[in-house]
Amino acid sequence: MENCIEQVNSPEDLKKLNYSELLEYCDGLRAFIMETVQHTGGHLASSLGAIELTVALHYVFDCPTDKILWDVGHQAYAHKIITGRADRFAELRANGGISGFPRLTESKYDAFTMGHSSTSLSVGLGYARARDCRNENHEVVSVIGDGAFSGGMAFEALNDIGAAQTKMVIVLNDNKMSISKNVGAMSQYLSKLRLSKRYSHLKYTVKKGLMGIPLFGHHIYKALDKTKDGLKSLMQNNKMFEQMGIKYFGPIDGHNLANLVSVFKHVKGEKGPVLIHIITEKGKGDPVAQSDPSKFHGIQPLGAERENTFSSVLSRFLCAEAEKDESIVAITAAMSDGTGLTEFGRLFPKRCYDVGIAEQHAVTLAAGLAVGGLKPYFAVYSTFLQRGFDQILHDVCLNNLGVTFVIDRAGAVGADGVTHQGIYDLSYLGIIPNLTILAPRNGVELERMLRWSLTYRYPLAIRYPKSYTQDGECADITYGKWEILKQSKSKIFILAVGGRAIDAAMPIADVHLVNARFIKPLDTEYLDSINREGNCILTIEDNALAGGFGQSVLTYLHSKGLRAQVQAIGFPDVFLEDYSIEHSLESADISTQGILKHLKNF
Amino acid sequence: MENCIEQVNSPEDLKKLNYSELLEYCDGLRAFIMETVQHTGGHLASSLGAIELTVALHYVFDCPTDKILWDVGHQAYAHKIITGRADRFAELRANGGISGFPRLTESKYDAFTMGHSSTSLSVGLGYARARDCRNENHEVVSVIGDGAFSGGMAFEALNDIGAAQTKMVIVLNDNKMSISKNVGAMSQYLSKLRLSKRYSHLKYTVKKGLMGIPLFGHHIYKALDKTKDGLKSLMQNNKMFEQMGIKYFGPIDGHNLANLVSVFKHVKGEKGPVLIHIITEKGKGDPVAQSDPSKFHGIQPLGAERENTFSSVLSRFLCAEAEKDESIVAITAAMSDGTGLTEFGRLFPKRCYDVGIAEQHAVTLAAGLAVGGLKPYFAVYSTFLQRGFDQILHDVCLNNLGVTFVIDRAGAVGADGVTHQGIYDLSYLGIIPNLTILAPRNGVELERMLRWSLTYRYPLAIRYPKSYTQDGECADITYGKWEILKQSKSKIFILAVGGRAIDAAMPIADVHLVNARFIKPLDTEYLDSINREGNCILTIEDNALAGGFGQSVLTYLHSKGLRAQVQAIGFPDVFLEDYSIEHSLESADISTQGILKHLKNF
Repeated sequence: MENCIEQVNSPEDLKKLNYSELLEYCDGLRAFIMETVQHTGGHLASSLGAIELTVALHYVFDCPTDKILWDVGHQAYAHKIITGRADRFAELRANGGISGFPRLTESKYDAFTMGHSSTSLSVGLGYARARDCRNENHEVVSVIGDGAFSGGMAFEALNDIGAAQTKMVIVLNDNKMSISKNVGAMSQYLSKLRLSKRYSHLKYTVKKGLMGIPLFGHHIYKALDKTKDGLKSLMQNNKMFEQMGIKYFGPIDGHNLANLVSVFKHVKGEKGPVLIHIITEKGKGDPVAQSDPSKFHGIQPLGAERENTFSSVLSRFLCAEAEKDESIVAITAAMSDGTGLTEFGRLFPKRCYDVGIAEQHAVTLAAGLAVGGLKPYFAVYSTFLQRGFDQILHDVCLNNLGVTFVIDRAGAVGADGVTHQGIYDLSYLGIIPNLTILAPRNGVELERMLRWSLTYRYPLAIRYPKSYTQDGECADITYGKWEILKQSKSKIFILAVGGRAIDAAMPIADVHLVNARFIKPLDTEYLDSINREGNCILTIEDNALAGGFGQSVLTYLHSKGLRAQVQAIGFPDVFLEDYSIEHSLESADISTQGILKHLKNF
Repeated sequence: MENCIEQVNSPEDLKKLNYSELLEYCDGLRAFIMETVQHTGGHLASSLGAIELTVALHYVFDCPTDKILWDVGHQAYAHKIITGRADRFAELRANGGISGFPRLTESKYDAFTMGHSSTSLSVGLGYARARDCRNENHEVVSVIGDGAFSGGMAFEALNDIGAAQTKMVIVLNDNKMSISKNVGAMSQYLSKLRLSKRYSHLKYTVKKGLMGIPLFGHHIYKALDKTKDGLKSLMQNNKMFEQMGIKYFGPIDGHNLANLVSVFKHVKGEKGPVLIHIITEKGKGDPVAQSDPSKFHGIQPLGAERENTFSSVLSRFLCAEAEKDESIVAITAAMSDGTGLTEFGRLFPKRCYDVGIAEQHAVTLAAGLAVGGLKPYFAVYSTFLQRGFDQILHDVCLNNLGVTFVIDRAGAVGADGVTHQGIYDLSYLGIIPNLTILAPRNGVELERMLRWSLTYRYPLAIRYPKSYTQDGECADITYGKWEILKQSKSKIFILAVGGRAIDAAMPIADVHLVNARFIKPLDTEYLDSINREGNCILTIEDNALAGGFGQSVLTYLHSKGLRAQVQAIGFPDVFLEDYSIEHSLESADISTQGILKHLKNF
């Protein structure tokens, strides 16, 4: 098994294998990925579901001349292994190793950096139009899941692709769920398409054809095309895509290598855009991942500790309060497990809206719910809320509506890497008028903030990383007031945002330590009180320095006549290429050592 | 005519009119709007196209209990007049007057603040779900144009609406174009729907029915429903929407009041979501606006001066350079006229991509074009680029690709008001690593910057307001270097971003005046040279202070040990509710007087 993995170091190696060797290689890939990911952690289920797809694509298309765009990119492990990264696969999602997502800078076979959903069609169309302008002739293939299909920008791109009519292959990898259970009208439409078809017919026909040699020869799919059960029958009931000008093939068994190869070879001859609808099983081949693919979407490495997560605090709070307060509703964009809304959705199915991977709609839906008299909570990852920036400003904050954004995975995110860093939210939210921004240091404080939010009627963001170290008492929430954690006779004042910054500062003796729980508005009364000649103020935040908390503090103090010395700790203005939270924080001096170093500079 | 306008001060007044009075009122509205808008300026064509629609909606539905959401909102003039704002209509888009768009704070009949495209379905679904949770029973109507339909968030919402199956009316106001000519597969699909139907049949049937009294009585549409040419025939060939779970009626002549009233009354009985597809003519009733509705989308008031626009410089540059350099391509999101791409599109149709109102896709398409070897320019309004924030960061800048954003209508925008202010771009762009940001002071400098961009291979944003006052010489562009406009022996240094700030500072004698053409990166060498005890530095920008240029300058100087005095002029952290550019600038001290006032504070 290891052996067959070692044999393939490029798509060219793959093309040398015969059919039975290819099947064996698929098994080998599946076992290799399962074995490795239990040590490294990663997106197991998606990659297991895409094994045959990946092998078939690299067998038929010629990368890197042809371009394959993996939407989101969490299904691309087999792609990484086939394209010469098997020997580095054990260092998946680790510093010095390789990314869990395709990276433009990592390999010539990674045609783009993926991470956020629903981008592959836009990038693909860009590649296709560039090819046309340059009079080139290569293929462009965008592989997109049914979940990513609910993202508005995928529709925007489809709309353009249908009109452009240039050559491009879209593989719709339909595993009947995105990260959580799939939702929405499009998903229902796809499921109708699945039910209306008997794709086993094609399978049978192709298998018969494949008795001959050479395998996957041209005569086979040409013959197929003429049979009733062949490719042509795959193009019925395809109204929606056809009506948009995109030729539809499907649905096709996405685990049947022979079928996939036949169809891919066939569509290479098409002149316009085609969509191939394949059906796969997330977690295919792993009985555990298959049984609960949502849980196994991303897995922790073996031996990872159980954490105190903020999402579990949110879950408990919303479930308890919604019982008493009928106005409480919650929204998730296909992340109910990750953000802690699963239990709430189970208890209050009519008050929990999973809108699919659709953050723009989620934000403005929340605005509509609020103006309609409800109390909406939109639970979302920091990096994905970037998609809703305009809607936060234009729909929620301009109207000054009581929407609460509960922002998870804020700050450095570790293994998911550069595409998922939650280090911009304080900056992009901080420039929006009417928005109040909070950060809790632990579960108790999050619970207090959520309770306080029940009576707050204006736009509110509460941001936190995945987990916290330990609970403890915390002061009540008063609007715009910070919490003094330590006082001393020293002239050093540490203003720390969130649990990570506070944990780093806590061991330092003989300083004032302040929990800067309100990032916006600042506690200006406190700032005025410490803005004195001889005082030293150090801000610490798990966020970019540009536009962040430290910059707000400096600007405020300066506007009042800067007397104290001020320094800021946070992430510099470069993309954070780091797969370890601890290392990320240390690199930015969000650590006890780092703080001590800065204190010496005063 | 004036008289009939004065008679209607609320939807209740409208409901008292009989059929012929309603028709007369429609004529009156049309004349009143045409007469007024030639003095005030505004979005004439859209509002003229929606007269009968608006009258029919207010005749059938009961606002403010029922909610009408006007997508974008530029078609809502008749709505404003019917709902008691006729007497203030002459002060449209003026300070002290009323907004050109629906505003939640302006009237109980304005169910939401509109301005950016494609939000009405999300807000509508929010209202509908809130109604359901609160056991209320009112109607929700979202009126959306075919152009706004190309926006991804409309699709995200449709996807959710189809799944939610709650009562909600979507009126698709199809005038066969958005702001410019409509584009995309969805638009082609709609045009097929239009061609496949003979909507005159319904018209005839309804007119026959309307001979009776009471007009628009229940018996009429009930009877209609039973005829072959009646409402049922409107529901054929509706595959796409039906497949998404949304009942389709149409197409219907959107200028036939009787038809509209009948259909709206009919759908009030529906339990789930319905979509009514109406066909209207943009500019209906005004021969001039009708003949070129794109030009008359927004019109200037009579006597408005001809301006030097930056968009015309962009147009000339791209047309000339594209002749020589085949890699130059351009993208617009349904704004080819406003951004200056119309001529380029005419000369190079295969290299100009109008993607519809789809800024997310536009940005990532640009990323794909760049990685595919081309030189893309995305011309876009500042306020609309907010939609692409995540894509700029994640797709363009993380990959460090040579996309140039040519950002028009930056800074205060005047009459379009609070929803369209371009005063956030320096802030939301400034926090993104790898992005260089420029602002030209006049057409000559924009031309220089564009020429310089031809050789720059990384992410670049060039931002400017609509117009500039006068051209003149300007220094060549050197990366990261500012242009010294005035030197003196004084200790006052004015660092001004863009033409407006520079124009305001120019008359001030005996100061150093610097054209801070590079907002990012800053000219740190120059800043170091003036960071001296006794020096006074004043930054001026036509942007929000939060996260803006002044804050960057202060943060940089402070990091090097702040010795000079520093002040910043820009917009404070509140939404800019102002319909006059001049007044907006004055209110923020971006004026000679304002600067002099600040200089006294040093």
